[in-house]
Amino acid sequence: MSLVQSVESKAIYMGRLSHGCDLLMELTRICEEKNITLGKITAIGAVKKAVLGYYNTDKFEYEDHIINEPMELLNLTGNVSLKDGKTMVHCHVTLSDKSGKALGGHLFPETIVFACEYIIEKFDGNKLSREFDKETGLALWPVEKS
Amino acid sequence: MSLVQSVESKAIYMGRLSHGCDLLMELTRICEEKNITLGKITAIGAVKKAVLGYYNTDKFEYEDHIINEPMELLNLTGNVSLKDGKTMVHCHVTLSDKSGKALGGHLFPETIVFACEYIIEKFDGNKLSREFDKETGLALWPVEKS
Amino acid sequence: MSLVQSVESKAIYMGRLSHGCDLLMELTRICEEKNITLGKITAIGAVKKAVLGYYNTDKFEYEDHIINEPMELLNLTGNVSLKDGKTMVHCHVTLSDKSGKALGGHLFPETIVFACEYIIEKFDGNKLSREFDKETGLALWPVEKS
Repeated sequence: MSLVQSVESKAIYMGRLSHGCDLLMELTRICEEKNITLGKITAIGAVKKAVLGYYNTDKFEYEDHIINEPMELLNLTGNVSLKDGKTMVHCHVTLSDKSGKALGGHLFPETIVFACEYIIEKFDGNKLSREFDKETGLALWPVEKS
Repeated sequence: MSLVQSVESKAIYMGRLSHGCDLLMELTRICEEKNITLGKITAIGAVKKAVLGYYNTDKFEYEDHIINEPMELLNLTGNVSLKDGKTMVHCHVTLSDKSGKALGGHLFPETIVFACEYIIEKFDGNKLSREFDKETGLALWPVEKS
Repeated sequence: MSLVQSVESKAIYMGRLSHGCDLLMELTRICEEKNITLGKITAIGAVKKAVLGYYNTDKFEYEDHIINEPMELLNLTGNVSLKDGKTMVHCHVTLSDKSGKALGGHLFPETIVFACEYIIEKFDGNKLSREFDKETGLALWPVEKS
């Protein structure tokens, strides 16, 4: 069965990340600063370089793509929950290169911001904690067993 | 004239779709279960296969792309309204393949979830019903004639 | 230091843009009509042609891509703030072509709507005004100097 949890909007933060910061680390820092342990993130902007993950569903491991060129950040979509009791920000990003071609993946640290405008929505509700899921090899929120 | 309708946020649901489910069908089922007939959906995750539509604007018909490989779900953006009195979930998805390259389209059934984390916002307001629009050949919300 | 500003959700508008309108100009017009000077925009749909920007971070100027073919609008993500006292809508778009391949960039005028379903959230809060930022050459919201 899918997990369906009711949450409430508690606060909204809007802003700009500093030039040169680590995209994932800085979003995580802001969530920690504002005590956001459940929430939603969207952003647009541009990056200087990116580290993107593709999950190999046979090997149960991420393959990394390091892209060392400036790209537009077409969309960042993410959520905030807990893992091992700590704030965990999970984001996927869509980028475009000089030719306009789009690429993307799971956002890893060392993706560096050129400019980034984000909106974080803080939710109230039962906490969501990631646990190891043996079907996928990922740290996921629990679903009821059907 | 464009249609501009005021709506109110009524509830927010956050969760995880079960491994192996049909992405579009399961989102639709959750909306039906929670009586959501007006709303907004976003999601990230990964899929095992995808069926994507490109609308041929000359022929007024969808061309399907069936992609039989695991891909990251970089972004799902969708809305909820009515068609023929029933809940209708309309989503577009952006995916990335093993090389990081992005692709996407209109989400069709038989797109299978590997893992998916979604947020659905339920709106209150005048109902929006899709009707055949002869300018585009699509089932769209009515706009005022200018 | 990154900018982190608290805002409040004030109203939500959902609707459909008229066939053949200018995507960026029409979203801007709706924001002006509804007195939205701070907010968030998402949309999906299809376009007849697109004008996309890639920011050249060496030359500090946008390079334009004009794409004269019908494409799916996989995702539009944008925000609303002020520039020179006027409503300024900043959007990035992800598109897909006939083959399913994704592309995208900063949304420029003369991107023409085939069909488009949008959601605009109006925020209340301290106004955000874009100013020239010498580190990037862009009109950005101010950040505190660290």
